[in-house]
Amino acid sequence: MVTPMDTLSRLEATIRARRDADPASSYVAKLTAGGRRRMAQKLGEEAVETVIAATADDRRGTISEAADLLFHLTVLLADMDVSLADVLAELDRRDGVSGLTEKAARASES
Amino acid sequence: MVTPMDTLSRLEATIRARRDADPASSYVAKLTAGGRRRMAQKLGEEAVETVIAATADDRRGTISEAADLLFHLTVLLADMDVSLADVLAELDRRDGVSGLTEKAARASES
Amino acid sequence: MVTPMDTLSRLEATIRARRDADPASSYVAKLTAGGRRRMAQKLGEEAVETVIAATADDRRGTISEAADLLFHLTVLLADMDVSLADVLAELDRRDGVSGLTEKAARASES
Amino acid sequence: MVTPMDTLSRLEATIRARRDADPASSYVAKLTAGGRRRMAQKLGEEAVETVIAATADDRRGTISEAADLLFHLTVLLADMDVSLADVLAELDRRDGVSGLTEKAARASES
Repeated sequence: MVTPMDTLSRLEATIRARRDADPASSYVAKLTAGGRRRMAQKLGEEAVETVIAATADDRRGTISEAADLLFHLTVLLADMDVSLADVLAELDRRDGVSGLTEKAARASES
Repeated sequence: MVTPMDTLSRLEATIRARRDADPASSYVAKLTAGGRRRMAQKLGEEAVETVIAATADDRRGTISEAADLLFHLTVLLADMDVSLADVLAELDRRDGVSGLTEKAARASES
Repeated sequence: MVTPMDTLSRLEATIRARRDADPASSYVAKLTAGGRRRMAQKLGEEAVETVIAATADDRRGTISEAADLLFHLTVLLADMDVSLADVLAELDRRDGVSGLTEKAARASES
Repeated sequence: MVTPMDTLSRLEATIRARRDADPASSYVAKLTAGGRRRMAQKLGEEAVETVIAATADDRRGTISEAADLLFHLTVLLADMDVSLADVLAELDRRDGVSGLTEKAARASES
């Protein structure tokens, strides 16, 4: 059975392995060669598409755009040598004893 | 030891548990009470902040904003009754025989 | 001499005139045929590009992306039968006696 | 009678005049003191809100958010010493003999 974590870990490993491949044959290499601004732009575009699909109550579209969002977020993070584990550790750090979500809440409201 | 997926699974479980709590004491309940548009707006805002931090080569800021992005994405998905597993299954579905990343690439370029 | 408003008025008139043209020969008609979500997506994408150019202190890029932003904003507004004059009247409405900018400020902070 | 151009020119003049005011009494001064990233963030946020209002077919909300978008775009441009006239000249530059809109189209598609 494939667990969700398998997917994220595999996605990240694949992206990191292909960053230096030939841009003509690898989309990850092509994105990476495009530079930081281009990678950030793709993340922003997929977020906009997720926002639109959710607002339109398009469940299937939201799933598809959220997948693109996670893909491009991972590409961008890899370019900054940030792992998903770093981001998840930040979520954990906000947790403490009283519950992750409410700590995240307070941080987001500031 | 806390693994990455532990964090995401726990985040999602916490968010789903608190959606119906008192908005005065729970940020998740407050966001949910604000409605779909408000949740989508928060996702968009955190994406913008991630884009800015990455463009400015602010590694610490990118980690923090990416954590906010994952938090608000999970809140929005929960409101549509979409689980992170649904999104990760979509990433897996694109994988097939030739590798997840390149399939995602073609999908994103269309 | 061409004044700024000449340009905006002409842009808006041209966009409105071409909405019903052949999508094969007119970009405005093609965008319009793509539907509301597609037009909103383009506005979001150009905003992301403007944000990135400004963050990177790219003056020339910011001018170019801001032009694209105004173009796609006008296309989207036309699709909702909103004129630039309606939007500018809203800015004026916020003005009152004490100055447009500070009224806008209070509205934005709420 | 107040023309649209009066509004935009006045908005820009007011913003430029207040950039160096006391941040405690002027929202423009407060935004400016917040720095480029903060100004770019506000532009991105208002664009997200415009995208959501348009997707939800909320005509009144779109007018209001588009007004906020023009306000924060002008604040950001002023911080880069770019005038609205510079942006409109770019739109004009794309015009040439065959019509502004279609040139803009080709530029946007590249």
